Amino acid sequence: MTECSESIETVETKYFTFANPPNELALESGEKLGPITLAYETYGKPNKQKSNAVLVLHALSGDAHAAGFHKGDKNPGWWDVMIGPGKGLDTEKYFVICSNVIGGCKGSTGPSSINPKTNKPYALEFPIITIKDMVNAQRHLIDHLGIEKLLTVVGGSMGGMQVLQWMVSYPDKILSAIPVATALKHTPQQIAFDEVGRQAIMADPDWKNGNYYGDLPPAKGLAVARMVGHITYMSDVSMTEKFGRRFTVNKQPLKFGVDFEVEQYLRYRGDNFVKRFDANSYLYITKANDYFNIFNGKNINEIFKGLKAKVLVIAFKSDWLYPAYQSQEIVRACKLAGVDATYCEINSTYGHDAFLLEVEEETLLIKHFLKTVLNGYEGLDKNDA
Amino acid sequence: MTECSESIETVETKYFTFANPPNELALESGEKLGPITLAYETYGKPNKQKSNAVLVLHALSGDAHAAGFHKGDKNPGWWDVMIGPGKGLDTEKYFVICSNVIGGCKGSTGPSSINPKTNKPYALEFPIITIKDMVNAQRHLIDHLGIEKLLTVVGGSMGGMQVLQWMVSYPDKILSAIPVATALKHTPQQIAFDEVGRQAIMADPDWKNGNYYGDLPPAKGLAVARMVGHITYMSDVSMTEKFGRRFTVNKQPLKFGVDFEVEQYLRYRGDNFVKRFDANSYLYITKANDYFNIFNGKNINEIFKGLKAKVLVIAFKSDWLYPAYQSQEIVRACKLAGVDATYCEINSTYGHDAFLLEVEEETLLIKHFLKTVLNGYEGLDKNDA
Repeated sequence: MTECSESIETVETKYFTFANPPNELALESGEKLGPITLAYETYGKPNKQKSNAVLVLHALSGDAHAAGFHKGDKNPGWWDVMIGPGKGLDTEKYFVICSNVIGGCKGSTGPSSINPKTNKPYALEFPIITIKDMVNAQRHLIDHLGIEKLLTVVGGSMGGMQVLQWMVSYPDKILSAIPVATALKHTPQQIAFDEVGRQAIMADPDWKNGNYYGDLPPAKGLAVARMVGHITYMSDVSMTEKFGRRFTVNKQPLKFGVDFEVEQYLRYRGDNFVKRFDANSYLYITKANDYFNIFNGKNINEIFKGLKAKVLVIAFKSDWLYPAYQSQEIVRACKLAGVDATYCEINSTYGHDAFLLEVEEETLLIKHFLKTVLNGYEGLDKNDA
Repeated sequence: MTECSESIETVETKYFTFANPPNELALESGEKLGPITLAYETYGKPNKQKSNAVLVLHALSGDAHAAGFHKGDKNPGWWDVMIGPGKGLDTEKYFVICSNVIGGCKGSTGPSSINPKTNKPYALEFPIITIKDMVNAQRHLIDHLGIEKLLTVVGGSMGGMQVLQWMVSYPDKILSAIPVATALKHTPQQIAFDEVGRQAIMADPDWKNGNYYGDLPPAKGLAVARMVGHITYMSDVSMTEKFGRRFTVNKQPLKFGVDFEVEQYLRYRGDNFVKRFDANSYLYITKANDYFNIFNGKNINEIFKGLKAKVLVIAFKSDWLYPAYQSQEIVRACKLAGVDATYCEINSTYGHDAFLLEVEEETLLIKHFLKTVLNGYEGLDKNDA
């Protein structure tokens, strides 16, 4: 269907720097960070009341470029399948916003940004940030865009944690929320996988305690970190379907070169990541994930107390990195707090990656959910629904 | 019960070097390796007919020291809970043998051994070895010990692959077999985890293409490899039970130092491993695992054709590295070939590590199984059974 396969045409990343005093953000750690720039993109148009805004929140290695094409680039944004005319997040109806998280390396202030106090990149002088800090920064952007209330906040994995944080930090600023393939807190297994990635980066002598800017990056360490990640994003079944035990065509003569297709894939993914991601950002952002614990000393029934937003929780059967039981726990927390929550577990074999790949079912779920949210909502222009 | 808690007292590792011409082993790769030394230990005594011999096969990081204590060492062998007077492998009844695999670093010929052609350590001159090669070397040891037929061959994980290889390579040399927590072939996910470990080692500049002997070993890379391994040996549940989200008492002031107990545990395990294991052995042995595919072009019903040995297959519910479905596939291959096979799935939360930890149930299963095997078997002295 043409209406579903259309993409937004050329898009440009925009930048917003907190311009009002005190020009900085009080972080959860107690430190302060500023000035802060957020890279962001928007798709579709705001209606008169700006009541059709959807905030999309990206995962660990994502960025502000969620949909459409950058000039001269053949690859669309990371969630182009979901954002566009007639798509799950229909840009003919909604004003879709996506910003790069703080701590990132795609235009938002992060460890590779210039520290105004030293005129050098922050490196490890960058303060520890949390999911809550990321969301607080996004709140500044939303205010800047003049949006009173978001129609929905949606994201998978780390994006889903930001959704949960919006539900807790700014319950009155959201009409609905869609946390996908995520968790109320990081488990020790999730922490452990992140820690292995960090150890791989820090073991690389090119890391130099974070001071590698202007020099060679810790490419080998970051590649190993990404390889570990990729295994956890797939599933036993999806790897077997995709690679089996096939050997590569050009078997290398070297010992411990590439034998199997799965090895080739991992190396390719690892090497590719190094070209587009900053190792220090990887350290900071994984740490933010590991610190994430929305309980924060509360009982499960208190977490979402008073939240009026409707919630759609989506999980995937073969996701073993953020297993379905963690999404069920989110639903439980919602129900115990009297929140209107729906749970959908998609029967996918893709593993955690499913949140980016199971487009058809996710589209239907999100479309239908947003219709339900809009029913009876006065804020939206009649012709927008 | 005192009879079950007894350990074998002091034991010594023995060494056997293939002494007969051609003094070398024809490897599966086509290359030849020799002379070969195998480090091995024995517990209990052979009976007159030497018909009470049990061959124990170790996993990736194991060695010949399966039970009892080395002089001055407070730590017993790696499967001491299973081998000893009155234990699952009762040394008052059985003559238990365990040898270090070729390619290893605990006394058997491996990449850190001296290459007689160069008088230097083999390093990457060491030929690629397979599980079949390991078993062929063990066969030499068994012949050397004058054993006609093994009462059983038993091992978990990579040890289990050797068990399966014994079932295929030397079906007439075994009366029974106990493959534990293992698989007929390595899946792409299993290969992928091994490959990440190898990449971590090879990314360490101290690896020097394998030529680090006499110098600093690639300690950081090997530690990262071991950390990845440890995550896969545990389970989501066992990690949550063991560590939760507890912070370490002495929170380090450094950024990206140890925050959580699970991180401390992984670092400890990683650093500890470096002291006792050779990085090149890690490369060779994981590669042997990844090449393992007992199908070898055969249909599943042909793999164990003609095997008369009784088989006990043991799996663990929470083992996601070698999931139970892989053990069920072993049983299926046995049944389709008319082999007398029993399947037991132990309801453990320990993950893959369960094969070393679920002692009580494993002991009962193995004891009972060996009794069944001995019933009607003429080879054993009456007073041994």
